[in-house]
Amino acid sequence: MSINEGSVVLSKDKNCVEIIDQTLLPLEERIISLSTPEEIYDAIYYLKVRGAPAIGICAGYGMYVLAKQIKKEPFLDELLRLGDYLNSSRPTAVNLSFAVNRLCNVAKKNILLPREELLELMRLEAEKIHKEDIEMCRSIATFGLELVKAGDTILTHCNAGPLATSKYGTGLGTFFLAKEKGIELKAYCDETRPLLQGARLTVYELQNAGVDCTLICDNMAAALMKQGKIDACFVGCDRVALNGDAANKIGTLGVAVLAKHYGVPFYVFCPSSTVDKNCKTGDDIVIEERKSSEIFEMFYEKPVAREGTKCYNPAFDVTDHELITAIVTEKGIWRGDESFETFLRRKNIID
Amino acid sequence: MSINEGSVVLSKDKNCVEIIDQTLLPLEERIISLSTPEEIYDAIYYLKVRGAPAIGICAGYGMYVLAKQIKKEPFLDELLRLGDYLNSSRPTAVNLSFAVNRLCNVAKKNILLPREELLELMRLEAEKIHKEDIEMCRSIATFGLELVKAGDTILTHCNAGPLATSKYGTGLGTFFLAKEKGIELKAYCDETRPLLQGARLTVYELQNAGVDCTLICDNMAAALMKQGKIDACFVGCDRVALNGDAANKIGTLGVAVLAKHYGVPFYVFCPSSTVDKNCKTGDDIVIEERKSSEIFEMFYEKPVAREGTKCYNPAFDVTDHELITAIVTEKGIWRGDESFETFLRRKNIID
Repeated sequence: MSINEGSVVLSKDKNCVEIIDQTLLPLEERIISLSTPEEIYDAIYYLKVRGAPAIGICAGYGMYVLAKQIKKEPFLDELLRLGDYLNSSRPTAVNLSFAVNRLCNVAKKNILLPREELLELMRLEAEKIHKEDIEMCRSIATFGLELVKAGDTILTHCNAGPLATSKYGTGLGTFFLAKEKGIELKAYCDETRPLLQGARLTVYELQNAGVDCTLICDNMAAALMKQGKIDACFVGCDRVALNGDAANKIGTLGVAVLAKHYGVPFYVFCPSSTVDKNCKTGDDIVIEERKSSEIFEMFYEKPVAREGTKCYNPAFDVTDHELITAIVTEKGIWRGDESFETFLRRKNIID
Repeated sequence: MSINEGSVVLSKDKNCVEIIDQTLLPLEERIISLSTPEEIYDAIYYLKVRGAPAIGICAGYGMYVLAKQIKKEPFLDELLRLGDYLNSSRPTAVNLSFAVNRLCNVAKKNILLPREELLELMRLEAEKIHKEDIEMCRSIATFGLELVKAGDTILTHCNAGPLATSKYGTGLGTFFLAKEKGIELKAYCDETRPLLQGARLTVYELQNAGVDCTLICDNMAAALMKQGKIDACFVGCDRVALNGDAANKIGTLGVAVLAKHYGVPFYVFCPSSTVDKNCKTGDDIVIEERKSSEIFEMFYEKPVAREGTKCYNPAFDVTDHELITAIVTEKGIWRGDESFETFLRRKNIID
């Protein structure tokens, strides 16, 4: 597995999902194998695999791996039960349920086929999810190039690179594609508390690709924008509503408000699979709250606040579409000159 | 010593300065006694005592304690030598040299008095520095009460509490005074990366006083404001220009921009000694940049980015006066209906 090619594959013997344990990066590059429902659930829950597309790829291969092990009948009931279980690991991640559903639907449609044939169709579907993601990322990165010029300095938040997807990434893809084409871009990377995906993963990926990048604490972005040092902001997203409101890693909304205040373009990179047709606006997006210990214990040598300290730890926030300059999908760029829903319909992303 | 009364006192036998070692908080509350020049120097140098007013109080009592031990003659030469030595522990801390000079001046003026009487005058001067700070903080806190109502929820950034001052603190004083008066206020406290003064000190102080407080990462403030959960923002300051532009801990500017966007009042708490008459605007304030290791190594069990990762680590940012709803001094509240300089002149803070 090459890290700049993505972080999830099906093992050679096809009996387990192999992932890079992203919680150990950047100091250790360890590949782990997942073959039980609990291992897959935990890998998603504990963010060993993270990033909406990567979670989708992991869930797709995961459902295939688990389907092969099903002994109980009826097969379909057991498969749906496993799907529900995996879905519950990260309720905000739309790619998770999307992938689980695709695998379940293949099984439903082909339930009368011999089991071996049905499983092979499920494997192909999981592989298709993976391949589609690679194509999608390259396309998004290509559209992203339209938004920058050589020498630009771009602020990133969280991680939307190859570790979070397959290849290139979404929010970071433009950096890698620009590098391939000899266009120099610079990055400032928000460390992204509390889980530090920016420090641990984005900086790591950009350094690996030879992109000039500077790590900052999340609260330093305002000072940079005030000094005119940021030409654009690039972020990924975890779920986008039909009106263009975008849920992404906590802190994204703050960056968007700052960008608006300082007149810096704010771009959201959004694979069309991340659009949630069931959400009319961002208000319909349920935000996952996580444990207090992530704020005052995790990563630290010793806790930085006392046992029992009350914390508020939302994993995501929702950026209102009014704060977004453009949303970049693999099918084109929405620039706000029509409603996001009209754009989605015109691009056949929704019916 | 009660922690909510401040972090520095003169010992009962008057032979040493007692401080809370702030580097060990919040997990350990260790009182240490300082009686030699080296002990006092190290306590200041290694930030065991921190916060401009607290350093001044420590230096005042310290000079008295050291003066009592002087055996060499001439007494004044020895005292001035000790003063120079303490001053060199943190050369940029104005309150440090201010306190040392006050104690030296008392000695100079009264050098002909019997030694016991002279030492007693020095003790009274040190006590006066301490009492003046308590009065200043109490006055600021009292004005702060005008800005809130029972049940309000206030966002804090960094630490401006009793540990950094004597009693009450500046930015936090209103919480303690409200508590004394039975007015319930709630706090959300930014952890304040990279040095975590919010998590380690502000939360600790508010918990000790029984104030309902919730710790958040700096990047979560936007989500709270969007939900309408914040009624006001309270911050301290490190240096304020004549036009009201305020330098404070990095991240303050971002909070102010968010507050403006969401229509939340943003209040700066500013002892008049913090106004820098030599700075016309915030552009005149030089911002200290600190080591990269504070961002990706400090406090962590292991580094979260690779050795050599490039960082930008400004210790402060400057909040433009246009973003500030009011500046609270011990002499009254500036609400922007006249220039800050006019206010300062009217209150005899500047000539």
